Amino acid sequence: MNFYMIAYVLAWVLRMEAVTMLAPLACALIYRESTALIIFLVAAGAFFLGTVLSVRRPKKIAFYAREGFVTVAGCWIILSLVGALPFYLSGRIPHYIDAVFEIVSGFTTTGSSVLSDVESLGKGLLFWRSFSHWMGGMGVLVLVLTILPLGGGYNMMIMKAESPGPDVSKMVPRVADTAKALYGIYFVLTVIMIIVYLLSGMPLFDALCIGFGTAGTGGFAVRNSGMADYSTMSQLLITIFMILFGINFNVYYLLQKRRLKEAFQCEEARVYLGIIACSTIFIALNIFQSLGGHFLYALHHSFFTVGSLITTTGFSTLDFDQWPQASQMVVLFLMFSGACAGSTGGGLKVSRLIIMVKEIGKELHVIIHPEAVRRIRLEGRSLEHSIVRSVNCYLIIYCTIFMLSVFLISFDGFDFVTNFSAVCATFNNIGPGLGAVGPVRNFADYSVLSKLVLIFDMLAGRLEILPMAILFSPRIWRKYN
Amino acid sequence: MNFYMIAYVLAWVLRMEAVTMLAPLACALIYRESTALIIFLVAAGAFFLGTVLSVRRPKKIAFYAREGFVTVAGCWIILSLVGALPFYLSGRIPHYIDAVFEIVSGFTTTGSSVLSDVESLGKGLLFWRSFSHWMGGMGVLVLVLTILPLGGGYNMMIMKAESPGPDVSKMVPRVADTAKALYGIYFVLTVIMIIVYLLSGMPLFDALCIGFGTAGTGGFAVRNSGMADYSTMSQLLITIFMILFGINFNVYYLLQKRRLKEAFQCEEARVYLGIIACSTIFIALNIFQSLGGHFLYALHHSFFTVGSLITTTGFSTLDFDQWPQASQMVVLFLMFSGACAGSTGGGLKVSRLIIMVKEIGKELHVIIHPEAVRRIRLEGRSLEHSIVRSVNCYLIIYCTIFMLSVFLISFDGFDFVTNFSAVCATFNNIGPGLGAVGPVRNFADYSVLSKLVLIFDMLAGRLEILPMAILFSPRIWRKYN
Repeated sequence: MNFYMIAYVLAWVLRMEAVTMLAPLACALIYRESTALIIFLVAAGAFFLGTVLSVRRPKKIAFYAREGFVTVAGCWIILSLVGALPFYLSGRIPHYIDAVFEIVSGFTTTGSSVLSDVESLGKGLLFWRSFSHWMGGMGVLVLVLTILPLGGGYNMMIMKAESPGPDVSKMVPRVADTAKALYGIYFVLTVIMIIVYLLSGMPLFDALCIGFGTAGTGGFAVRNSGMADYSTMSQLLITIFMILFGINFNVYYLLQKRRLKEAFQCEEARVYLGIIACSTIFIALNIFQSLGGHFLYALHHSFFTVGSLITTTGFSTLDFDQWPQASQMVVLFLMFSGACAGSTGGGLKVSRLIIMVKEIGKELHVIIHPEAVRRIRLEGRSLEHSIVRSVNCYLIIYCTIFMLSVFLISFDGFDFVTNFSAVCATFNNIGPGLGAVGPVRNFADYSVLSKLVLIFDMLAGRLEILPMAILFSPRIWRKYN
Repeated sequence: MNFYMIAYVLAWVLRMEAVTMLAPLACALIYRESTALIIFLVAAGAFFLGTVLSVRRPKKIAFYAREGFVTVAGCWIILSLVGALPFYLSGRIPHYIDAVFEIVSGFTTTGSSVLSDVESLGKGLLFWRSFSHWMGGMGVLVLVLTILPLGGGYNMMIMKAESPGPDVSKMVPRVADTAKALYGIYFVLTVIMIIVYLLSGMPLFDALCIGFGTAGTGGFAVRNSGMADYSTMSQLLITIFMILFGINFNVYYLLQKRRLKEAFQCEEARVYLGIIACSTIFIALNIFQSLGGHFLYALHHSFFTVGSLITTTGFSTLDFDQWPQASQMVVLFLMFSGACAGSTGGGLKVSRLIIMVKEIGKELHVIIHPEAVRRIRLEGRSLEHSIVRSVNCYLIIYCTIFMLSVFLISFDGFDFVTNFSAVCATFNNIGPGLGAVGPVRNFADYSVLSKLVLIFDMLAGRLEILPMAILFSPRIWRKYN
């Protein structure tokens, strides 16, 4: 294990985080908030530390898959430990573990909060919180490596570790170019969205913060009322952009290259949009009577909730904890399904679901026709065995961590629905759960141990488990192997 | 698809069921109950129909995997539809769907009931209900085929379809011999158990019925008080025999052949007993304070509950719905884990869990050492790829059916815990769930649709899904393929 190299990359991550803190710093200065000083001190300290640690470039820059995974995990942990300091040092979040929970929830684009009065954070810290969604959405380490060219073929692997979904297609031959293309699309889409939000009548601060949340599919609100205060038009636009950011970014790349036919044939995106349409209509029909019989009103909120949950954004306009059981089950399904691979959303990812459904079909086919040879196809291509295997492994390890997490947080005495949905909401990077962690409640009452478990779940969910799981493998910590 | 052959085998199943009804008939006659007449009429009718339909042996006895699966599913459906008639025609269970639910719960060794006052059934029907556990435990169709030698190599496949677990080892070269060896062990163990129960002071009727339930790992009680009335010694013996019937029957076969070393090295049985020991101690420590601080008392009931749930028997002495959340989570884990493959228990099976855990280990190993080639080993042998694949498929299809079932029964308006545990209890063939279907409640209040879903789940759980899933494949119903 090349620990020098890992430390060197992590030092660069620290420097980059310090730079990104200039954005909330500027915001705090504009609103003349006292937190500006705290943010400045943390940023300066991080930059200094990062510079000191990265002053000597390691001689050996060999970097294998194991180093890649440890670096990814380490990067996100460092980001969070430092990113939590402004909340803690300013005293706005009195316990450090709560501050870490909040910023991990930010970077992993989860949106679960320990705060009941978010407005008390002040604009600067609210901005930092939402900005972390935007940074976390597309992955931090890939960005660092794009601007820090070290040579070697490790980038693709880190990108695989940090990108959601079972497979990253190499869109262009060089990984750095793929990364640049993706960041470009992400940036342009974000700018368009913020302009549209402004046009719909949102204040600038809200448009920026909600925009960051939408782009990263995180779910932090900037008002205590959540999304309920915005106009119906703004809510509709938020829904549309949430859904757009849940689509595989390959589609946008193809659109940009004017390969329209290929773009519109994307199997995963079609299934994803199909699920959204069906779920929206079902929930609207199921809830509209309990909402006073206004079908369009029900359709609007159903659309918002479906878009918010399948993309694992987690914004909420209505308390879906009050809906009929059947709708709540659809909600639960959406929480697990998640958005497309290669988007900023969390969850299991639609492409994994498609592969799983096709595996079932194949198994039944083989029983009926034992002599048949059939390969699973996705996006018109026959899937390699290793991808199918990794999808299966993902499901197994996903269920295992899910179960263990629910067990570990069950000592706090909350009911099963609360614990189950707390893990579901954090592990799938959604935000709000059901019961005592429902859309209008928060995670503050869990014990420190439970918060650590949920923090692990958020990171494992965002990094698709393996980089976090591998930290627990004793083999990885031996110096020579 | 050879429908003639399927019909011929199913006719024989009918005849055999008619013969087995002589046991409850005798019981009803001994207690001079009016239900004797009903049981006699049903048995006579079934025998007559079976004889008429099996009078002509089909010319083509070719029989492939698809026919095997359809026959297995058809056999269990026929058994249930006819087996429900005595309950319905006697008026003791007024709705036919409830009667079917009850007997499916019997044959699949589930033990979920729609009755609150079981004693009102009368001894004859209670005996039939418990006897169905015993018949269902080892599989019905294999028994029919053992006494109905048709030649051809299809038996192994049907045995695979009807036996729980990912793999049936061919213990002896001929399948019929393997089946006979297994039935022999089953029969001898049952007789020993019933004698031991009698010695512990249980009345004969109870010893027989509880014995049938223990052997088949079904959970029907014969008293309204469940198991609470029996002496502590009887409860302890029941626990021990439940656990014994949850062990892979290969172990008993090896013991019988005096291959002691191999028997004691069975990896699955060791893990199974390890899980039981750890869970028992954990729950005892967790609940003993709420039970008034009597540790031995807590240990006794913890042992009983753990044994009852991991074997998916479902007998209960205490209402575990009242236990602390952490213990309830262990209970939930045991419900999903299930007993050993090749036993009479349900659930996912311990060997599947072992394979899954090893798959995770392999995946992590491959990341750390990309050049490594490692195969998953179980019981000292390297596993074939097709077994690992079918375990993965099983998990996927299991989760899918589980989720769909919870969704379909959620329209009845029960809470999530009730619905979730109702599916968990039926799909894993356990019996009682939590909430409104907890150990001291029952399934009567669900709608007809929900009962159909739960009936499907019980059958799918007992037959390990594929035979039931394949019935929904349109291809299977084409006459020529």
